[in-house]
Amino acid sequence: MPTTPTPADHFTFGLWTVGWTGNDPFGAPTRAALDPVEAVQKLADLGAYGVTFHDDDLIPFGSSNQDRELILKRFRSAIQEAGLKVPMITTNLFSHPVFKDGGFTSNDRSVRRFALRKVLRNLDLAAELGAETFVMWGGREGAEYDGSKDFSAAFDRMKEGVDTAAGYIKDQGYNLRIALEPKPNEPRGDIFLPTVGHALAFIAELEHGDIVGLNPETGHEQMAGLNYTHGLAQALWAGKLFHIDLNGQKSIKYDQDLVFGHGDLTSAFFTVDLLENGFPGGGPVYNGPRHFDYKPSRTDGYDGVWDSAAANMSMYLLLKERAQAFRADPEVREALETSGVFELGQPTLAPGETAAGLIADPAAFEEFDADAAAQRSFAFVRLNQLALEHLLGAR
Amino acid sequence: MPTTPTPADHFTFGLWTVGWTGNDPFGAPTRAALDPVEAVQKLADLGAYGVTFHDDDLIPFGSSNQDRELILKRFRSAIQEAGLKVPMITTNLFSHPVFKDGGFTSNDRSVRRFALRKVLRNLDLAAELGAETFVMWGGREGAEYDGSKDFSAAFDRMKEGVDTAAGYIKDQGYNLRIALEPKPNEPRGDIFLPTVGHALAFIAELEHGDIVGLNPETGHEQMAGLNYTHGLAQALWAGKLFHIDLNGQKSIKYDQDLVFGHGDLTSAFFTVDLLENGFPGGGPVYNGPRHFDYKPSRTDGYDGVWDSAAANMSMYLLLKERAQAFRADPEVREALETSGVFELGQPTLAPGETAAGLIADPAAFEEFDADAAAQRSFAFVRLNQLALEHLLGAR
Amino acid sequence: MPTTPTPADHFTFGLWTVGWTGNDPFGAPTRAALDPVEAVQKLADLGAYGVTFHDDDLIPFGSSNQDRELILKRFRSAIQEAGLKVPMITTNLFSHPVFKDGGFTSNDRSVRRFALRKVLRNLDLAAELGAETFVMWGGREGAEYDGSKDFSAAFDRMKEGVDTAAGYIKDQGYNLRIALEPKPNEPRGDIFLPTVGHALAFIAELEHGDIVGLNPETGHEQMAGLNYTHGLAQALWAGKLFHIDLNGQKSIKYDQDLVFGHGDLTSAFFTVDLLENGFPGGGPVYNGPRHFDYKPSRTDGYDGVWDSAAANMSMYLLLKERAQAFRADPEVREALETSGVFELGQPTLAPGETAAGLIADPAAFEEFDADAAAQRSFAFVRLNQLALEHLLGAR
Amino acid sequence: MPTTPTPADHFTFGLWTVGWTGNDPFGAPTRAALDPVEAVQKLADLGAYGVTFHDDDLIPFGSSNQDRELILKRFRSAIQEAGLKVPMITTNLFSHPVFKDGGFTSNDRSVRRFALRKVLRNLDLAAELGAETFVMWGGREGAEYDGSKDFSAAFDRMKEGVDTAAGYIKDQGYNLRIALEPKPNEPRGDIFLPTVGHALAFIAELEHGDIVGLNPETGHEQMAGLNYTHGLAQALWAGKLFHIDLNGQKSIKYDQDLVFGHGDLTSAFFTVDLLENGFPGGGPVYNGPRHFDYKPSRTDGYDGVWDSAAANMSMYLLLKERAQAFRADPEVREALETSGVFELGQPTLAPGETAAGLIADPAAFEEFDADAAAQRSFAFVRLNQLALEHLLGAR
Repeated sequence: MPTTPTPADHFTFGLWTVGWTGNDPFGAPTRAALDPVEAVQKLADLGAYGVTFHDDDLIPFGSSNQDRELILKRFRSAIQEAGLKVPMITTNLFSHPVFKDGGFTSNDRSVRRFALRKVLRNLDLAAELGAETFVMWGGREGAEYDGSKDFSAAFDRMKEGVDTAAGYIKDQGYNLRIALEPKPNEPRGDIFLPTVGHALAFIAELEHGDIVGLNPETGHEQMAGLNYTHGLAQALWAGKLFHIDLNGQKSIKYDQDLVFGHGDLTSAFFTVDLLENGFPGGGPVYNGPRHFDYKPSRTDGYDGVWDSAAANMSMYLLLKERAQAFRADPEVREALETSGVFELGQPTLAPGETAAGLIADPAAFEEFDADAAAQRSFAFVRLNQLALEHLLGAR
Repeated sequence: MPTTPTPADHFTFGLWTVGWTGNDPFGAPTRAALDPVEAVQKLADLGAYGVTFHDDDLIPFGSSNQDRELILKRFRSAIQEAGLKVPMITTNLFSHPVFKDGGFTSNDRSVRRFALRKVLRNLDLAAELGAETFVMWGGREGAEYDGSKDFSAAFDRMKEGVDTAAGYIKDQGYNLRIALEPKPNEPRGDIFLPTVGHALAFIAELEHGDIVGLNPETGHEQMAGLNYTHGLAQALWAGKLFHIDLNGQKSIKYDQDLVFGHGDLTSAFFTVDLLENGFPGGGPVYNGPRHFDYKPSRTDGYDGVWDSAAANMSMYLLLKERAQAFRADPEVREALETSGVFELGQPTLAPGETAAGLIADPAAFEEFDADAAAQRSFAFVRLNQLALEHLLGAR
Repeated sequence: MPTTPTPADHFTFGLWTVGWTGNDPFGAPTRAALDPVEAVQKLADLGAYGVTFHDDDLIPFGSSNQDRELILKRFRSAIQEAGLKVPMITTNLFSHPVFKDGGFTSNDRSVRRFALRKVLRNLDLAAELGAETFVMWGGREGAEYDGSKDFSAAFDRMKEGVDTAAGYIKDQGYNLRIALEPKPNEPRGDIFLPTVGHALAFIAELEHGDIVGLNPETGHEQMAGLNYTHGLAQALWAGKLFHIDLNGQKSIKYDQDLVFGHGDLTSAFFTVDLLENGFPGGGPVYNGPRHFDYKPSRTDGYDGVWDSAAANMSMYLLLKERAQAFRADPEVREALETSGVFELGQPTLAPGETAAGLIADPAAFEEFDADAAAQRSFAFVRLNQLALEHLLGAR
Repeated sequence: MPTTPTPADHFTFGLWTVGWTGNDPFGAPTRAALDPVEAVQKLADLGAYGVTFHDDDLIPFGSSNQDRELILKRFRSAIQEAGLKVPMITTNLFSHPVFKDGGFTSNDRSVRRFALRKVLRNLDLAAELGAETFVMWGGREGAEYDGSKDFSAAFDRMKEGVDTAAGYIKDQGYNLRIALEPKPNEPRGDIFLPTVGHALAFIAELEHGDIVGLNPETGHEQMAGLNYTHGLAQALWAGKLFHIDLNGQKSIKYDQDLVFGHGDLTSAFFTVDLLENGFPGGGPVYNGPRHFDYKPSRTDGYDGVWDSAAANMSMYLLLKERAQAFRADPEVREALETSGVFELGQPTLAPGETAAGLIADPAAFEEFDADAAAQRSFAFVRLNQLALEHLLGAR
């Protein structure tokens, strides 16, 4: 039986997740609006560690300063009472029509200025609430038609925006890091920084890239047919896994935002295995929140909303239990040895060996019997079957 | 009518392209083997600038040194006589069974050593033949099952391999640069460095990344549903577009390697527009060969092989003609202005302006009328229709 | 230059197309609501032949009978004045929250009754307005989770719904045929009748299948990576192509509803070639309206709405011109011969020949030289290059 | 722990599955050829019920009649000794170069005659070996370019071929049924009859469609992003599920042919649930063999081949155990009730009710409170979580 979550599990939820009322491209909302304060209480009751939000989730776009303060005051009381943290906040640069061509890369300079200013304002709020991560999802930064953008200028503007925000964080002395969230498409035909890779590559070009990393989302990578766990691994390897968005997606289609584990279950198992157990041979680890960015099914009422929130956490804990048993199984350890999984940790060159040294070693090439070496069976299917039997609780 | 290609167009072909005999996962070859010397002569006759090859395309795997020299001698004569260059060569680390789990990242260390040694040997040949680019496609570097690899170790080994090769180039004083070729999957379930973005991000972690860039292939990006021209743009922006592989692909499926323009035609138009005309507001440009990496249809005989080789070049030239007319059209220029395409070149901040300055500007935020600004029509459909009419030769 | 459309071209538009105000899963509308009467006038001015609509596009859900009559009266005047036809109407069983689990296949029987009743009412309106086609898109008929539906019961209910509607048409003596519109997913995770094939197969099981056919949409087939023109061909071959929805889609992703030709241009060319010129060897043809089911870009104002409406029609006419030139070109005719395209029209068996006759013919098998026959070059690339050069206006 | 398979489980394997030596588009075989007789013995040892094969798997293409008889004699002894059945055989119309443009729909009539004759000969063998199903996978029936085929003629020829074969079966009095196997693409750009739906629709046009049904393959449907279990359900509903090909596929990409359950695990669970437990409300059931059509990983030796064969069976049995527990759980039954899963089995119309009756019922429409009805929570997430917990053995 899945154990019950506690704040020690570091599960967090966006207000926009349980608060999604069900509007979609073909239909109207099916649920009434949810008071953020109620969301906070319910999530705390369910065992969550924290909540996150876009500015506009909490404070309606265009609110007066006075209303803003009242809303924030009420919210601060709610989280304090509930004992929840706010480890991350983010800025909405996609819902209002003014952002229809993007925020940082809108072809309209006045929109870019407004967008950047909206972000700066929200950085202050993030710092004030004690958030450590500031997510940037540039959902409208992109195009449907290749002729409608100067791509080089777009990357320049994206860099200008992110560097200005990151520079501001440093200037203000905030304990904040930025986490970029890639997505390949939807709502734009092609979104800039479509994958974990593109975003990592972009960060390498920044002036203040040291405090900029990633917030990879399960479904977003899978919408490009990419392996989410591979993406997490490359981000970890680059020291850039600052935050994660866990959810579920089935194959390449529209963004489904299912409950974690309700999409590709085997992939979810290996994601948890990496997050909880690390790489087989050691290496960088992830210590941030386990953040769920999903949508409760539009077919369900609020009973389903809370059931689905709980399901995210219990699925994670169940997979964690299975992943720990997988790693602890001596037969698995033997199978990992047989498959050469630990052997990949050995450098290809010997200690101190150079290219010249390798060239001088006839065993490496001239005397190497490729046909004989090709006979080695990596036995990967056996190893995978062991993993699946652990996942299924069948060992 | 498409004009006839000349070497000044810098069109190049892999020996493995016109030489593909048609074996596929479900069928045997449909064409007899092609003598590389015949390929060289025919490509020269058709107007190509150069040829490229994997070591094993020219010199069968396991050839004796003596046979190797004889083959190379004959090949050198052929290219000299035909007046063709060899601007790029690459190493086959995927066909022989010994590479079934990869080359640089095989779980078997002896295979990794053999693979790296095979690359070093081929770097010498590249330098000798005057090639300026050394492509690395790690087609077998990947996995089908998430448990069968230590991903962090895999990235370490990939880095070790590429850095060793790049360091060797520097040590030998070769005028060579390495170009990594990303691909999302096939023949492995998931390939490491699956997209332009992931490969760019990897390069940023290298010791000798200054001489390592990219060789993006049209179909490989499109197999992940990504926009190839966007990918080229990000590589250019990062100063890393070292080489290109042009071909055709229809949607997300197996790797089709169609003739350039025979896949997504509109995307091909914008690719050529970028390669030939650059970004609308200027910026980095590509000056390397226009390299075709395609497969002549298995249904066709050698007549079809040469027709298809010619088709790649004439499609490119035709698209170039249309792209030039597109950029020269005053109505297009006006439409680009209306759509704000040039406006994106303007920095978001004013000269010398800082975050503090932006915060202090009420026009940017406090007095900004978002609803009014949202009324701007970007008229992107009109611009796209103009582009398509130029593509179709209808203006 | 594209010629100007006239009603003789039989172009029709849904009111929901030009009337889409831009709400999407991540953003609010960017355009004000459009009065259907204004849409009618503008479309007539642009050269359209007719308009189509969902009941709720014209008459808001829940309108009183009195309001309904007033709205219809005003609309009838408008179309009469504009000289537009209403060749098709359809019923909205997806926007109101009551349809969140579908209409004909909702797990709630009271919803199924309401949905069927809503359809019957709309059939009366269709007949009254002189429509000849009644489209059924079951966008919400489906599921996210395999356990949430009894699939056999779902097909029973779908059959019950369609047969009841078709039987009603016959009983009332209406000059109407039903056209089912398949879609693989979005807004449901998996939609029942996901492709042209599944819907054709379903029709074969109906009691009143004789008046039930298909309304295939370009992008819907392409969202499953399928070839739209192949789908049209199979529907034509089965005598079931009752209506078409033309638009544009780029690869497998969310439903884009781009302008026709602004997605996969080459596929659009072959679609028009089939619709206008028929199969190379003759056979069934399509004579219905050329209906556009697209969305004007959310980034554009009403200038862009009307530009995009015009673009659909001018793209179609331009492709028609190119397709006609393609078929008329003697070199193309010769290439079709060489490729055996007409030869496929010859029956495999000789006139009167049976299986026994084929077995008795040694030339077919015992004396057949498969290796020699395999040498035939189908020269498909040359033929495709000719098609593309016609498409590009380069011949 | 997974139980051990026995012949009573009706597991069958193609000779081409365990016999796949690992050639792929980018590499040579990694395993030596497997003697079919050894395959038979090993599969019997592992608990299989039967073997299946393409003619050319067992008898090399072009064998003399004498060699053919010797091979068949040896094979008959082997299966008799091993106690294995041959419930299905199929014809290879795709490997030899002569089939490069297809078999039944090749543009070359002499090839079509040869292909049909090859099928007729194999029908005799099928009958002789006691097979009850004859599978037809038209892997080369398709095109890369829309211009290279007359689609209407192609469907005519496909019909001619299948009807001739089916007519021959009837004439000979064979106890055989034909099962068509759909696939969307690979090795052709687009294959005719790309999905379960298209093949079902095609069967409806046949003269001898009564003995023609389907053989749906897990990965083939998933390569089009379609739900395999939905496809099985529609085939069952139409009375056409004659055979199944179980395997694993991860998302939309090349054909992976992984072990069953090693692709989309949750989908595999619901597939087994349908095959073993039937629809929730009863209806047609599948009683044929559980046939695996997969490829043992190219990275593995023959140890991995047999491990993977065993893994297919133990995964199926494990999922069967979980699916039975799922259906037996009273909480699940209650959840199915709450979600309305059984309610979907109730006809929408009352017994004897007609369209007129529905129209006359004000409760259905005039007095129906849509907003109130929309409040019903279908609680689908809870139901799915229950299913997943059963799948994971966590209840």
